[in-house]
Amino acid sequence: VALAPGALAAGTPSLATLSSHGGAQRIANTPATGKAKNVILFIGDGMGDSEITVARDYLYGPGGTLEGIDKIGQAGATSAKETGVGQYTTYAAGDGSGDRRQQITAVTDSAASGSAWATGTKTYNNAVSVDNSFNPQMNLIELAKAKGLATGNVTTAEIQDATPAVMESHSTQRSCYGPQGKTDGSSDDSAKRCDVAQLKQNGGIGSISEQLLDTRADVTLGGGNKYFNQTAQAGEYKGMTLKEQAKTRGYQYFEDPAQLSSLKEANQDSPVLGLFSSGNMPTQYNESTPYDYDTAVKMSLAGQKDGNQSLVTCTQNSEWLGNKGASLADMTDKAIDLLSSNKNGKENGYFLQVEGASIDKQDHNANACGQIGETDDLDKAIAAALKKVDLSNTLIIVTADHAHTSQIVSWPTYYGLTTPLRSADGSALYVAYATSSSPMDKGGSMSHTGTQLRIAASGPGASRVNGLTDQTDNFFTIAKTLGLA
Amino acid sequence: VALAPGALAAGTPSLATLSSHGGAQRIANTPATGKAKNVILFIGDGMGDSEITVARDYLYGPGGTLEGIDKIGQAGATSAKETGVGQYTTYAAGDGSGDRRQQITAVTDSAASGSAWATGTKTYNNAVSVDNSFNPQMNLIELAKAKGLATGNVTTAEIQDATPAVMESHSTQRSCYGPQGKTDGSSDDSAKRCDVAQLKQNGGIGSISEQLLDTRADVTLGGGNKYFNQTAQAGEYKGMTLKEQAKTRGYQYFEDPAQLSSLKEANQDSPVLGLFSSGNMPTQYNESTPYDYDTAVKMSLAGQKDGNQSLVTCTQNSEWLGNKGASLADMTDKAIDLLSSNKNGKENGYFLQVEGASIDKQDHNANACGQIGETDDLDKAIAAALKKVDLSNTLIIVTADHAHTSQIVSWPTYYGLTTPLRSADGSALYVAYATSSSPMDKGGSMSHTGTQLRIAASGPGASRVNGLTDQTDNFFTIAKTLGLA
Ligand SMILES: [Mg+2]
Ligand SMILES: [Mg+2]
Ligand SMILES: [Zn+2]
Ligand SMILES: [Zn+2]
Ligand SMILES: [Zn+2]
Ligand SMILES: [Zn+2]
Repeated sequence: VALAPGALAAGTPSLATLSSHGGAQRIANTPATGKAKNVILFIGDGMGDSEITVARDYLYGPGGTLEGIDKIGQAGATSAKETGVGQYTTYAAGDGSGDRRQQITAVTDSAASGSAWATGTKTYNNAVSVDNSFNPQMNLIELAKAKGLATGNVTTAEIQDATPAVMESHSTQRSCYGPQGKTDGSSDDSAKRCDVAQLKQNGGIGSISEQLLDTRADVTLGGGNKYFNQTAQAGEYKGMTLKEQAKTRGYQYFEDPAQLSSLKEANQDSPVLGLFSSGNMPTQYNESTPYDYDTAVKMSLAGQKDGNQSLVTCTQNSEWLGNKGASLADMTDKAIDLLSSNKNGKENGYFLQVEGASIDKQDHNANACGQIGETDDLDKAIAAALKKVDLSNTLIIVTADHAHTSQIVSWPTYYGLTTPLRSADGSALYVAYATSSSPMDKGGSMSHTGTQLRIAASGPGASRVNGLTDQTDNFFTIAKTLGLA
Repeated sequence: VALAPGALAAGTPSLATLSSHGGAQRIANTPATGKAKNVILFIGDGMGDSEITVARDYLYGPGGTLEGIDKIGQAGATSAKETGVGQYTTYAAGDGSGDRRQQITAVTDSAASGSAWATGTKTYNNAVSVDNSFNPQMNLIELAKAKGLATGNVTTAEIQDATPAVMESHSTQRSCYGPQGKTDGSSDDSAKRCDVAQLKQNGGIGSISEQLLDTRADVTLGGGNKYFNQTAQAGEYKGMTLKEQAKTRGYQYFEDPAQLSSLKEANQDSPVLGLFSSGNMPTQYNESTPYDYDTAVKMSLAGQKDGNQSLVTCTQNSEWLGNKGASLADMTDKAIDLLSSNKNGKENGYFLQVEGASIDKQDHNANACGQIGETDDLDKAIAAALKKVDLSNTLIIVTADHAHTSQIVSWPTYYGLTTPLRSADGSALYVAYATSSSPMDKGGSMSHTGTQLRIAASGPGASRVNGLTDQTDNFFTIAKTLGLA
């Protein structure tokens, strides 16, 4: 049902305004400040203030300080002369691509939110850099390439997942991973996963993976190599797998994380495409259990008697790619090296997006240790960037795409599930989960949340990140600072 | 169980450091910037980022802007030349005054958190401006008075409640409301509510209400007048009720909110003490119901068919004191008038704390409309202050004491309780509650949460509010800006 204009209270912007390009900006009139040669945008998927605090509390105690996240946006914490920090709003302009597309929804998915900062256009949940009318919107990597900048896209997720996808493609459905849909190439579910008009055999621009190869960032690193076993169904590379296509088109395509450290260059003749896992990358920490009330209370009472020794501590996952030289910090470090030594990067600068993807995925799973380890992985990546870049010509922005479910509570909760953790300082940390719409033991998934969340920036242009912004403002901050718009 | 020093991970500050005066500061080395003549500190009790967003989404739509809260800390949104914004940490140094006092706890109560910004000392849950060893710590009203400033303390709660109490008293237990404990004077539970050594008959400094009269702010406005029917048990005013004592000591004591508008002056000869309700003040909106999963889903599905007409909209409470001229905006407006025209205020400036107390109380009750109305009441108070003060000599700070339980979710939750609301723009807003440790229909209370939250400031000294701070930093920001420390 469409909303009657008469239903709008005074001071309530209309959907038509909010879903137009730039229409949801909160600081449209704020001038661009410094010009940066380079911008690195760090996204913690699902990293709301609660997720940041959970990680800080567990890893360093509530009075401690995260190595990277807490330094960005803080005057004096780095060499940056310009800093900015604030909160930003993340709502979407519609709830899915069907009937409810043209209705504001207070809770965004990763696709609408990523599209917002990638293109400056508020759109519907499920949209990958297309607007509410399905029109493709230029994204920051396309705009940066058009101005001769080097570009990079790094994630711990499948490279076709929404957050990296918004920088490499335009898709009316986020699940349109490849020409054969979301399969490993041994079957085809593209009719279900894609708007069929978008497929190449129907004259469309193709799937997310095919557009990724067209977009041709200098450096692309992530997971999801199984989808590259799919075969193009039409076009110049018809009949080739995407891996073959990548190699044919000059990509340095590789899957072994041990090769990362030996890479020497990445450019438009020979872009780097490293896909190190079949799906999402393994997490840094092993999974923890979210307990029901009775169990969590028993553990917590025991903890009060034994100095919290009865509580949960997180353990390293042997499968984590950081053990093989491909932590998010390793990938970030290498991407910065490659982009800054690349001819375009040297002359014109670079734009790099780095995503810590699985904070979100483990929050969905009510996996406290999982989300903490992934937040740490992102934190270390930011710290690695801080060691490497010159903040007099490079702007670093740290934020998230939406907040998430985890809450720090004072005692295990009756209604939900709680993981009672023992923090670095020996204190108890009760992390609660309760937002799924079905039981977790029957496949439930905890919900994204709609709260405003932290955005922080250090370097030229950072002061445009100030007070209350919307995530579409982030597009304009980056575009203006790099001179793209 | 005491923590062994050896248990501390690298970079994890010790409890001894964190609980010393100033020891939990995150920006101790950040210089004071501007000097302000006046400071107004607005506290939304329990107003985390989620509570701010719930109110904005409901009242103005997710793309809308709050009238006061969203303007503070934002460059260009007011006439302030200096602004600051960031996140701050709120953990406590101990969990209650007993055995577990000397252990960091990730979730603070209102007493420890208020003590932190009132005194600069991180302390235990339950402490009212005393440290972890029960030593009284000077609070901002005492320090401001010592420098000749005018002072005010305004709240929608009982005036003895923790947030106002930290500015008027020092008490090892927050429940020590009066010489007869927490009663209306017809009985005495002081042995249970107070550390008996603190009572006047035992040579102590007396209860919170008695210390309030000793502290003698120029303007004190709030609820809780039933406790002023208690009778002093010892000391100069032995045998008098607290109301009689107030009048005897020169206070303009009154209980009728209609008298607020006619007040002409407030000073040390004749301070204003207005207590407009027997307990906490009535809320602006009537209570809403948090529904179980099945009911909330039924309503939400119906809402999808009827333009969300089946969802909840909030209604005005006829008992709200704003109907009688004593909204929080009215009280704030009057307090500013009285303090700025007072001789001390004119010459030396003023310090005023204004609390919107019942965001917290209604969040505890899983009352979405309640918390929204109280956030609006605070928002309007900030807007009223913005209309009145000169931001070239007055610093306004807006923050909270801790975050709270309400979450904006994408659909009613299986585990918890959900109120599906219809927002100003006609969209659905699902607010979920699930953190209590017992069922709500058996007296449960939703939990405070431990996430970092927003602090924002406009006016001279505001830029000291920057990046990640701790709530103890707020004490030093105010004290340095006013020249108190
Ligand atoms: Mg993502
Ligand atoms: Mg309070
Ligand atoms: Zn996401
Ligand atoms: Zn997600
Ligand atoms: Zn509180
Ligand atoms: Zn509370």
